[in-house]
Amino acid sequence: MKTKVAAGIDIGGTKIALALETLGGEKTARRRIPTRVEIGGAAATVENIALALEEMADQSDGEIISVGIGCPSPLDIENGLVMSPSNLRDWDRFPIVRFFEERFDVPVALDNDANAAALGEFVYGAGRGCRNIVYITVSTGIGGGIILGGELFHGVAASAGELGHTIVQPDGGARCGCGSIGCLETICAGTHIARRAKEKLKGGAASLMTEIAGNIDDVTAETVVEAVRRGDETAMEIWDETCRFLAIGIANIVTLLAPEKVIVGGGVAGAGELLFAPLKKLVPQFVSMIPADKIRIVPAELAAESGVCGALVLAKKAYRKKHQTYEV
Amino acid sequence: MKTKVAAGIDIGGTKIALALETLGGEKTARRRIPTRVEIGGAAATVENIALALEEMADQSDGEIISVGIGCPSPLDIENGLVMSPSNLRDWDRFPIVRFFEERFDVPVALDNDANAAALGEFVYGAGRGCRNIVYITVSTGIGGGIILGGELFHGVAASAGELGHTIVQPDGGARCGCGSIGCLETICAGTHIARRAKEKLKGGAASLMTEIAGNIDDVTAETVVEAVRRGDETAMEIWDETCRFLAIGIANIVTLLAPEKVIVGGGVAGAGELLFAPLKKLVPQFVSMIPADKIRIVPAELAAESGVCGALVLAKKAYRKKHQTYEV
Repeated sequence: MKTKVAAGIDIGGTKIALALETLGGEKTARRRIPTRVEIGGAAATVENIALALEEMADQSDGEIISVGIGCPSPLDIENGLVMSPSNLRDWDRFPIVRFFEERFDVPVALDNDANAAALGEFVYGAGRGCRNIVYITVSTGIGGGIILGGELFHGVAASAGELGHTIVQPDGGARCGCGSIGCLETICAGTHIARRAKEKLKGGAASLMTEIAGNIDDVTAETVVEAVRRGDETAMEIWDETCRFLAIGIANIVTLLAPEKVIVGGGVAGAGELLFAPLKKLVPQFVSMIPADKIRIVPAELAAESGVCGALVLAKKAYRKKHQTYEV
Repeated sequence: MKTKVAAGIDIGGTKIALALETLGGEKTARRRIPTRVEIGGAAATVENIALALEEMADQSDGEIISVGIGCPSPLDIENGLVMSPSNLRDWDRFPIVRFFEERFDVPVALDNDANAAALGEFVYGAGRGCRNIVYITVSTGIGGGIILGGELFHGVAASAGELGHTIVQPDGGARCGCGSIGCLETICAGTHIARRAKEKLKGGAASLMTEIAGNIDDVTAETVVEAVRRGDETAMEIWDETCRFLAIGIANIVTLLAPEKVIVGGGVAGAGELLFAPLKKLVPQFVSMIPADKIRIVPAELAAESGVCGALVLAKKAYRKKHQTYEV
């Protein structure tokens, strides 16, 4: 008899992470495949995913009993649709839930990628043992997921947790892709760290960054971090501002929700102590109503796996819901 | 046989509101007494409250079965203590819960005044029929309460919901009583609206406000509102800035929590449409991820009664918890 396995799918702009897990919690297969949005769009991509999952199940003698999907926003979760995320443009209103329901004849759950990552960290990572956490991913953009009382908090139109679009610099801030001015994302997301560095360099600031990147246009957030490590003053100015505003954004969340932990993931969190040391120092300065020792800012533990781990949790929840069982 | 009644106590800096309510939901008595912090401090005040409640119960032939208390922060809810609120300074660590438990031999529940008001609006006022709401009171200071899934959300150290201390003007903002710079409260609370107006007037701005108040030092938030109604340009500048930043503060809450409603109460909300018209226009401009028609900013419905109504809810919850019953 085949082993029952839940399937997790974490869809990114360039790669898709897949995993299978038994009811007992053992991961029996993992794989990464390219998103390849240039060939065939959504239909070709989900077909690729389905084939990969079937192969993974066959090789591990598993039977897929449910599917969980983390996917970039915007989504129509109620109707199981991927709308038109900026990095999956040709997916316009693709019925991803129905596709996998019909393909595998199993229950399927969909949530946005940041919520899935929050759930992954909550169950398998830095949030283990907590009831209330906030997960924030600082990457190309800034996203987040809020878990309260052990459950993802969705809010109206399943739109809660958009931490990157809280406004922290209303006067003199940059215009965000969302239309507002001074969103946290416009200062602290990787693309905006790079933009701010480039603007400084084009303004004539002396810096190692140009040398590290080769030329100004190739400067990235990683370039800034590397230059900070080498003691470059211009890079340190950019980085200090990044840390200060990220601390304000996190402080506002802490002041509102007083979570047990704020878990920070995403590429920019790869800067490690260069980011976490200032955050741990600054956030308590910006939060007056909670004792500093109760404020915990911690790195995500699952790195690139947060999302797919969360997708597995979604899959198991979908199975439980359908079969009204607590066996998984 | 006497009628079983829950007792609600809402303690303010100058007045205390009291009410009794039957298990069937009928309010049988209401009273307001002065806080009189100058005479005898906490001990004399709670004695006054107890005597008033006993008299109210006697007159309505009621038997007090539980007590709920809303009180200014900071509190130690776990241990039932009133710490040292700025408007109840001599209450330092007063064991208010134990006092009423011993006096009436009934279960007693304590929460902060903004949380109690949130609960009052949720059960009896503008939040009826919702599951997730945020209540914000804009008064001398700015406080708030968050209700998620039908329950007050407390967070670590019962400190969630301090909306007034989210930071919205980190650069160039004023220092808040809490120590941070640029808290929402430093712009939009009544005292700070008055402070900003006085600073403008002392800087030589022409305005009706001096005439309305009699002299600059007597200008209040009400003066500003009255001058706005008369078309005074200096007052309108102050008010526009107030509305803009309050909209940003509310927008950040909406972006994080996507509540069904944001309920705005407190003295400054008494400005009515002068406040709500700009908020309804501006908040959707500052929230990109939620359709404008799903964002609902509404006035509190219970005015000065929100707090005592919430205290009654706390009392009933305490009774239910003790007696493990759902009869109330």
